[in-house]
Amino acid sequence: MPTRETNAPIAVPRGLAGVVVTDTRVGDVRGREGFYHYRQYSAVELARTRTFEDVWHLMFHGELPDAEGRAAFAAETAALRRLPADVEDVLPALARSSAPSGPLAGLRTALSMMGASAGLRPLYDIDPARRRAEALAACAAVPTLLTALHRLGQGLPPVPPREDLPYAANYLYMLTGAEPEPRQVRAIERYLISTVDHGFNASTFTARVIASTGADLAACLVGAIGALSGPLHGGAPSRALDTLDAIGTADRIDSWVRERVLAGERIMGFGHAVYRTEDPRSRMLREIAEEFGGPLVTLATQVEQRVEAILAELKPGRELHTNVEFYAGVVMELCGLPRAMFTPTFCAARVVGWSANILEQAEDPKIIRPAARYVGPPPPQPVPMP
Amino acid sequence: MPTRETNAPIAVPRGLAGVVVTDTRVGDVRGREGFYHYRQYSAVELARTRTFEDVWHLMFHGELPDAEGRAAFAAETAALRRLPADVEDVLPALARSSAPSGPLAGLRTALSMMGASAGLRPLYDIDPARRRAEALAACAAVPTLLTALHRLGQGLPPVPPREDLPYAANYLYMLTGAEPEPRQVRAIERYLISTVDHGFNASTFTARVIASTGADLAACLVGAIGALSGPLHGGAPSRALDTLDAIGTADRIDSWVRERVLAGERIMGFGHAVYRTEDPRSRMLREIAEEFGGPLVTLATQVEQRVEAILAELKPGRELHTNVEFYAGVVMELCGLPRAMFTPTFCAARVVGWSANILEQAEDPKIIRPAARYVGPPPPQPVPMP
Repeated sequence: MPTRETNAPIAVPRGLAGVVVTDTRVGDVRGREGFYHYRQYSAVELARTRTFEDVWHLMFHGELPDAEGRAAFAAETAALRRLPADVEDVLPALARSSAPSGPLAGLRTALSMMGASAGLRPLYDIDPARRRAEALAACAAVPTLLTALHRLGQGLPPVPPREDLPYAANYLYMLTGAEPEPRQVRAIERYLISTVDHGFNASTFTARVIASTGADLAACLVGAIGALSGPLHGGAPSRALDTLDAIGTADRIDSWVRERVLAGERIMGFGHAVYRTEDPRSRMLREIAEEFGGPLVTLATQVEQRVEAILAELKPGRELHTNVEFYAGVVMELCGLPRAMFTPTFCAARVVGWSANILEQAEDPKIIRPAARYVGPPPPQPVPMP
Repeated sequence: MPTRETNAPIAVPRGLAGVVVTDTRVGDVRGREGFYHYRQYSAVELARTRTFEDVWHLMFHGELPDAEGRAAFAAETAALRRLPADVEDVLPALARSSAPSGPLAGLRTALSMMGASAGLRPLYDIDPARRRAEALAACAAVPTLLTALHRLGQGLPPVPPREDLPYAANYLYMLTGAEPEPRQVRAIERYLISTVDHGFNASTFTARVIASTGADLAACLVGAIGALSGPLHGGAPSRALDTLDAIGTADRIDSWVRERVLAGERIMGFGHAVYRTEDPRSRMLREIAEEFGGPLVTLATQVEQRVEAILAELKPGRELHTNVEFYAGVVMELCGLPRAMFTPTFCAARVVGWSANILEQAEDPKIIRPAARYVGPPPPQPVPMP
């Protein structure tokens, strides 16, 4: 119900930076400490020691599963990987039509269709158990949809999911059709776990704004995918790798970087809206990359050192370090993921975080509706007759 | 680039009520005065004297067209009504799959697909002329998509658009396949004009959050459609009419309304987040309804009077009046629109407002990324070994 205060404009920083929209129990990012967590647990620690399914369980149920719960949850989600027949039938047409834009745009369309086909109801009209079931089904379908859309776009048949493989292994399996190497599975699993959630980023916020209207789950996820597709949000992991390609060899780093920084350009993969320290995801992904080793990793660590030094010299006091995108690109390349699948793979993890946020938002039926300040010429101007 | 202030949390009212996210020249809502405008011009005045195309031109170009500009703009937009062949081909499958959820969910899928198929580029990577062209094409396609999806859902073939008809007439024509009555065309056109934009509502805000990431136009529109589909936002015009059906006759108004208000239920069609006076859209739509007359209109005006009186008695000081949904439902019913098309018809107007907001947001490349306050148990909790 309306309250009086809604007419009093409140000025806040541009882009809502630091503006607390809601309370949450999902997780938090402590930018000054270089630390983030999911429901109390360090995300980086979870990535070191737990499976993706464990973390998914944590995000949905509020706690890590015990041995029995873990097996049950893994079986429940694995059984949801297959697509409904009507969605499967239309996938070749979707892959063709989304060829100019890639698998993320195809996923947006496919999830929209899948939600409509399932007759999803408004979030405020269904109980938490039904919301959970719908979110589980959507999350489980995302890897199947993404890999099928990618393969169809390459002229290859989709590889049906295997229920006997864990989430990360099944993802790589559906992408290539071959049993993935354990080292690659574990690297991607750690990447996926570390990417599940990260505060009130633009896509999570989008999902919660849509959820706040009481719209159905698919409406929320489709909006979040849209926000993730923006270059200022999810669009950069492959660009950071393009930067490494453009530099090519270690002796070219300094001239390449100085030229761009002095021209006022941004170096992709450096700087974050929240972290004032090293990005903890970046540290973890560098460790994974270093376990692989090789010329790409050597170049990446050299570029990191030189760019940080040059940025500290040319932009003193700004604390610009590598962000998640820089080593994420390196790790995905080492695991054989094609660049067109970098942001989609990010999405295959973040959909679990979006869902946890949507489920939380649905418990608090209050629409998110801010204001704008009109700065055009003063109204009313008489409408001239046509 | 990041700034220091992003780490300082800023408390604001729940749901961001009254929080100024950005400056705008698109329009404004003055809740205390019961007045809203598009780029200086009273929206209600525009609805009285102008065509939908004139207002569309105003929203996109910042000014009303002269006689020459009007003809050129009408011709330009009419030529964009036909759908691309790949979208047309898949519409029957989309209509089948979205049958459980309705035309708005089908539109969400179809626009997502259309955008992917057109290979839309990130907003920040293209110039204003290209952005305008993409937005024009999307807006022009919406009525064609909505009416085709509705007809296919009824087992009827789509009616192709006619370029010789103005926007509103063509919309009703595509819906029924018959030349609409001028009185109905004019009533729907006034409704559509009055619905083009209305401040920073949840769907417009969603579109701008997604746009702020630099995502493409389709990503923004698809998210906005999702927000509009929420019952707390666009979902109520048919429910307000359901209320009139449930009441049935004038002698039942008082007992029906008192019972619900005393039970703490909300009466659909009454109360607005911003207006503290009569909703100016409601006043205009009541006038249109009264021009039609008939038993439904008589009952509606009686219900309005009695509900306002009972709410003033039971909830003194709250200023609860009819909102846009109440008489919008009545007017759409009088114009022969099926109830499943009430919110979709709202969407056929609002897409122009979303687009104007997206085009404005794209001029200011700054991501919208707020914060949340973590209120769960304190981290870090050691991660137990599995």
